[in-house]
Amino acid sequence: FEGVALSDLLSRSELTCFSLAAQGSQSLADLAVVGDTVAIFGNEARGLSTAQLSAGITLVNIPMPGDAESLNLSAAASIVMYHLANMQAS
Amino acid sequence: FEGVALSDLLSRSELTCFSLAAQGSQSLADLAVVGDTVAIFGNEARGLSTAQLSAGITLVNIPMPGDAESLNLSAAASIVMYHLANMQAS
Repeated sequence: FEGVALSDLLSRSELTCFSLAAQGSQSLADLAVVGDTVAIFGNEARGLSTAQLSAGITLVNIPMPGDAESLNLSAAASIVMYHLANMQAS
Repeated sequence: FEGVALSDLLSRSELTCFSLAAQGSQSLADLAVVGDTVAIFGNEARGLSTAQLSAGITLVNIPMPGDAESLNLSAAASIVMYHLANMQAS
């Protein structure tokens, strides 16, 4: 997807697009994806901007026990890619 | 487990101990743990030393598609802790 605008990607109905947010409505553990998937990583502190969120991207949270506020972006990205790779394999 | 020698930890039969290795015989995706678990992270490049391995620690690999040799330690640790947290929750 190099050189493709995000808005163009999101308009493709065959793609599943999601982003991470601590307040995301869906748990990553329950996220089942089929086919090509776009995981969008926003700003580490603020996530995606409101304009970007309005495109109807699913917001996914990483379930965490304890009181930690959130993971840093590299840790979160590692976990997302592990989850997606596992889903493709199974 | 602060201030406890690794060898003492490994001798406790009630603990499950494992470490990561690219050549590990068990996939993290299949690792089911019950009760208290010790995940040991060795040297990023070389893993655990032979002396440390001789204690009978299970070696676990993180399944990865593609040709990448391995993950860096922070990414691997993030994935392991996510997996363990998910297992405790389910």
